[in-house]
Amino acid sequence: MLTVTRTVRIEWGDCDPAGIVYFPRYFEYFDQCTAGIFEAIGYRKPALIETFDIVGFPVVDVRANFRLPSKFGEDVQIHTTIPEWGRSSFKVQHRLMKGDALAIEGFETRVWVGHDPERPGGIRAKPLPTELFERFRHA
Amino acid sequence: MLTVTRTVRIEWGDCDPAGIVYFPRYFEYFDQCTAGIFEAIGYRKPALIETFDIVGFPVVDVRANFRLPSKFGEDVQIHTTIPEWGRSSFKVQHRLMKGDALAIEGFETRVWVGHDPERPGGIRAKPLPTELFERFRHA
Amino acid sequence: MLTVTRTVRIEWGDCDPAGIVYFPRYFEYFDQCTAGIFEAIGYRKPALIETFDIVGFPVVDVRANFRLPSKFGEDVQIHTTIPEWGRSSFKVQHRLMKGDALAIEGFETRVWVGHDPERPGGIRAKPLPTELFERFRHA
Amino acid sequence: MLTVTRTVRIEWGDCDPAGIVYFPRYFEYFDQCTAGIFEAIGYRKPALIETFDIVGFPVVDVRANFRLPSKFGEDVQIHTTIPEWGRSSFKVQHRLMKGDALAIEGFETRVWVGHDPERPGGIRAKPLPTELFERFRHA
Repeated sequence: MLTVTRTVRIEWGDCDPAGIVYFPRYFEYFDQCTAGIFEAIGYRKPALIETFDIVGFPVVDVRANFRLPSKFGEDVQIHTTIPEWGRSSFKVQHRLMKGDALAIEGFETRVWVGHDPERPGGIRAKPLPTELFERFRHA
Repeated sequence: MLTVTRTVRIEWGDCDPAGIVYFPRYFEYFDQCTAGIFEAIGYRKPALIETFDIVGFPVVDVRANFRLPSKFGEDVQIHTTIPEWGRSSFKVQHRLMKGDALAIEGFETRVWVGHDPERPGGIRAKPLPTELFERFRHA
Repeated sequence: MLTVTRTVRIEWGDCDPAGIVYFPRYFEYFDQCTAGIFEAIGYRKPALIETFDIVGFPVVDVRANFRLPSKFGEDVQIHTTIPEWGRSSFKVQHRLMKGDALAIEGFETRVWVGHDPERPGGIRAKPLPTELFERFRHA
Repeated sequence: MLTVTRTVRIEWGDCDPAGIVYFPRYFEYFDQCTAGIFEAIGYRKPALIETFDIVGFPVVDVRANFRLPSKFGEDVQIHTTIPEWGRSSFKVQHRLMKGDALAIEGFETRVWVGHDPERPGGIRAKPLPTELFERFRHA
């Protein structure tokens, strides 16, 4: 199973008055890592959107548990995988490591959505393209 | 049980290229609402920190499910409660409503932490002050 | 000249490890206030975009000077005016006050832009609609 | 004169409903680049703060002009220099390039501040340490 690892520098502006990462920023990191795993199989997000005629892959469920805080100036590693594919949804798992220590686990469930032909401006779930599975299988 | 309701205007800068709220922003809204429920019993966050000599009340677990998107320019209501108190932790629930429709449910588990006297710069859980319970009971 | 005043609560997540507002957040506040002055004459931003068929009114020049910091939990007032209108651009001035003290002055030059009919996906400046001037004149 | 160049990926969450970078995010990028130029001479921001006993180097004046927008998924280059040193302040210049085209110029004036020994919790300007000048001179 493909795992993509990204090193993230904790920036001053991502931290709060307690000197540690303001927790919503972690979800931004994770969102970037989800885009990153698609980039790893050859599709930057703009290309994904254009190629497969989607609006995006919004989250429908998000969860994270926080074990260790991180301070500004630190570099952390985020390991991202897609442990499960559905018909038009998929799960993403992120493990944020500080050295060997697991600091945060994050989980997303996302849906592959396109424009709804029956409701202008609306969106609806679309089947995930088989080409993606192929690319992930061979990554 | 005290429920505090805040109206949030969805701002342009909180939305993404799909025109809907970038999901990490919801966790910022929720974090502000958690501060708001303490303000409702008489303690703004700076006063909480000073009065009870804490560093803050960081999340250890966060979860949200997303049913309906919100677009910029919309006003939504967030109803916040504290359904459960532990010895040094508590749970917070947020229900983001669009009119009568439940758009998002958010859940936080937070820990009441102070400076660790044995580790300079470190933090550790502290018992929640009984005065808080009293105030919430009579709110 | 119409001046619109908004009270902004300085939130925990807008502050940095020094305990004061992380300065890019001020530009978010100011951007919201610019939207607010149009709302004051009857147009929320989504209505502005739809009614006048524009993409937005992006900044081309931004400046701010910072005299006093603000800490989380504080409430500040931002007074916003449009001191100058051009043919397809306008200037916005924001004065962030802490009580009677001027804490920050911000200046934006913005351009009224629509879709470029000659370049798909491109944008270009459009003349400001006279209806807007009328509304501001009588505000 | 030392110029430090950083490549920045424009992330989905940094962009607005018009599909381009929400302008306050540029100031975050620039702030990170200012930290980056100190890192290039051997001091990450936490080390700067600890070594020289400062609170930080907040901006007192910020300006930017925006010539070209950037869209999510793009990679841009930011070139950062410190064109002028004062006794306790310094200027920073950022040039954001899209290929050979100058997209944005940003300017910051920052002050080197420490704790004010006469006002608990207050800050005041401190002379810039000569060691920094030496390091920049030999960089």
